[in-house]
Amino acid sequence: MSDEKKPSAKAMQAWAERCLVKQGATLDVAQAMAKHLLAGDLMGFRTHGLLRLRYNLQALAKGQTRGDGQVAVLSKRAAIELWDAQLLSGLYVMPQAVARALAMARDYGTGTIVVRRAQHVAALAVYLEQATAAGMLIQMMASTPAQQVVAPHGAKSACFSPNPFAIGVPTTQQPVLLDMSLSMTAAGKVRTALAEGKQLPYPALITAGGDYTCDPAAFTAEPAAVLASLGGAELGYKGTGLNLFSELWTLALSDYGRDDAQASDADANTVWIQVIDPTAVLAEGAFEQQASALVSAVKAATPIDADQPVRVPGEGALATRERQLQYGLEYSAAVWRQLQWCADFCAEPLPR
Amino acid sequence: MSDEKKPSAKAMQAWAERCLVKQGATLDVAQAMAKHLLAGDLMGFRTHGLLRLRYNLQALAKGQTRGDGQVAVLSKRAAIELWDAQLLSGLYVMPQAVARALAMARDYGTGTIVVRRAQHVAALAVYLEQATAAGMLIQMMASTPAQQVVAPHGAKSACFSPNPFAIGVPTTQQPVLLDMSLSMTAAGKVRTALAEGKQLPYPALITAGGDYTCDPAAFTAEPAAVLASLGGAELGYKGTGLNLFSELWTLALSDYGRDDAQASDADANTVWIQVIDPTAVLAEGAFEQQASALVSAVKAATPIDADQPVRVPGEGALATRERQLQYGLEYSAAVWRQLQWCADFCAEPLPR
Repeated sequence: MSDEKKPSAKAMQAWAERCLVKQGATLDVAQAMAKHLLAGDLMGFRTHGLLRLRYNLQALAKGQTRGDGQVAVLSKRAAIELWDAQLLSGLYVMPQAVARALAMARDYGTGTIVVRRAQHVAALAVYLEQATAAGMLIQMMASTPAQQVVAPHGAKSACFSPNPFAIGVPTTQQPVLLDMSLSMTAAGKVRTALAEGKQLPYPALITAGGDYTCDPAAFTAEPAAVLASLGGAELGYKGTGLNLFSELWTLALSDYGRDDAQASDADANTVWIQVIDPTAVLAEGAFEQQASALVSAVKAATPIDADQPVRVPGEGALATRERQLQYGLEYSAAVWRQLQWCADFCAEPLPR
Repeated sequence: MSDEKKPSAKAMQAWAERCLVKQGATLDVAQAMAKHLLAGDLMGFRTHGLLRLRYNLQALAKGQTRGDGQVAVLSKRAAIELWDAQLLSGLYVMPQAVARALAMARDYGTGTIVVRRAQHVAALAVYLEQATAAGMLIQMMASTPAQQVVAPHGAKSACFSPNPFAIGVPTTQQPVLLDMSLSMTAAGKVRTALAEGKQLPYPALITAGGDYTCDPAAFTAEPAAVLASLGGAELGYKGTGLNLFSELWTLALSDYGRDDAQASDADANTVWIQVIDPTAVLAEGAFEQQASALVSAVKAATPIDADQPVRVPGEGALATRERQLQYGLEYSAAVWRQLQWCADFCAEPLPR
C-alpha cells in the first residue's frame, strides 16, 4: 500500500476496538481482542493479525464468540488448573491465563493452565512477553478439535488440527520468541498463496492421491489435499510425534476431544500454557546469562550464505514491530480490502 | 547372528551387571545401568543399548562415570527441583528422578526435575513407562554441553548437541512412547551407516562447504560435516527453535552451559523431566479415554501405501520388545563383536 495509507498502531487498535464493541463485545473484551490482533500485525504474523478481524466480528455477531463473561475454573491442584473459556475470545482469555500461570510459578516454581473452549487465539507469539518481561520462561501449545487438516506420517488423510507451538524466554537482551506450526506449513499460508496465485515454496501438501505438491489449489480441491506433518516424506514421524504431543497435552488433558466439541463451539481451541520461574532453582540473573550464551552460539554459527546471517527466533518479529511502531503498519492491499469490509460492516470508517 | 547366539534378556542383563561391577559400580548402580541399556535393546533402540556397554565400562574404569554415590538436590521450590547427578550414570539417576517427579505430581499436579551432570542416559524411551504405568504423562529432554554437532538453520557449523525429545502417555491400551532426536538424524545412526558402508537414506548432514549430503564419511572428514536441524534446508528454523527449546529448558535452567562443563565431565548431560498427573484436573480414566481417541484417529488415517498402515509412536518398539522377550535378543554381528570386547575387557564370558 502507498505511504499515505500507513496508519499508526494506536489508530488501528482504537478503530478495531470500536468495531468489536459494535458487534457486542464489552469494552474490556474489545480492548484485549484489538490489542492482541494488532500485536500480531506488529510482529509480522500477517495471517494472524487484523486480517482476522472480519472473522472475529462475524463470530461475535453470530454469538459463536461471547462478547462478555468470565472463564470458569473447572478444577485445580496447586500448580495446575483446568479452565473453561466458555467461548470467550482467546484474545481476551490468554492474558488472564498467563497472569495466573505467573502467580502459580511464583508459588510452586511452575504454573500450568489448560484452557478449553477458547475462541480465536490468533498468534501465540503475542502472549509470550507477558512472561518474559516478568523474567519467566513460557511454553504454549494450542489445538482445535473441529479441525482435521494435518496428516500423520504415511497418511494422505488428516487427523490433526494445525497446531502452533510457542516459547518465550528472557535473556540479558531481547527475549527469544518462537511461534511455529508443527506442520510443514500453516493453513493461513496456503490460503494466502492461493489468493495471490502463487505456488508454495516447497511441497507441504499431500493430495488425496498421496502425492506431495506445492500447488495451493489442491487444498480446496475435492477431495482436498491435507497438510503434511513437520518432517515431510522422510521424517514426518517426528512431526507426527510432536502433533500428538500437542493434542495430548491440550485436547486430552482438557477432556475436550473431537467427540466432545459441539457444533456451536465452531473453531474453539484448547490452549496449554506453562510458565517456569527460573529463580525457583537458580540465582537471580543466572538463567538469563545462560540463555544469552545459547543465543550467542546460534548467532556465531557460520552461515551457509555469507549474506544471510543465522537468526534467532523472535529477532525478525521484534525488528518488524520496531519499524511499524515508528513508521506505521504495513498492510497489503489484500488485507486493507478485508479491513474496509469490516469498516463497512460496522459503519466505522478506517483511520487515514 | 545365528539362532544359537540369540541370548535371553535375563542372561544378558546379568552378564552386563557383572561386567559393570568389575569396573567399579556398586551392585545397585550396576543393576540399574544394565537394566536400562538392555531395555534399549529390547525396544529396538540398537544405538542406545548394550552397544554402549563398552563406553560405559571405560567411563567407569577411567573414573569419568562414578560407580557409587548419591545425587545432590541443589535447590527446589514445591513443584520443581534442580539436581546434580555428580557424574553418576544417567541410567542409575533417571529412575530416581522420575520417581520423585511422580511424587511431586501427586502433590502439585505437575512435577519437574532438571538433572545436570548425569553421565550416559542412553534412550529416554526406557524411562517413560515408569510414569505411564502410574497413569501419568511424562516429557523428557536432554542436552550435552560438551557436544556441538547440530547446526542451526542456515549455518554450516554446529552449536547444538544431538538433543532427544521424548514423551510417554497412558491410554486405555498400550502407552504412547515417543523418543526422537530434534536433528535430521542422530550421530549414532551416522556412525552405524559409516560402519556398515551405507549411505544415509536422505541428506541429513551439512558439509563444511555448506552442501547437504547423504555421505556418512563427511561426518568424520576434516573439516567435519554437521547434522542438520529437523526441517532441513526449507524448514530448519523449526528444528532450530525446538533445539533451542531443549537447550534452554535443560542447560540454561540447570546453569550448566558450554562454558561451565569441565573437561572431566566428559559427555555429561542435563536432563529435563516433567510429569503430569491427569487426575489433578480430570476424573479418573478420562485422560486415557481421550488419549485413546487421538491414537485411534491416527491409526484410522488413510495410508499413502496401503501395505504400510499408519503407526503410533511406541507401537513398533513395544512389538520388538515382545518378540525379543519371547525369542531372545537380536544382536547384529557388529554389536556382538562389541559385546565380545566387553567380555574380554572384564574377563566375563558372554552367555551362550
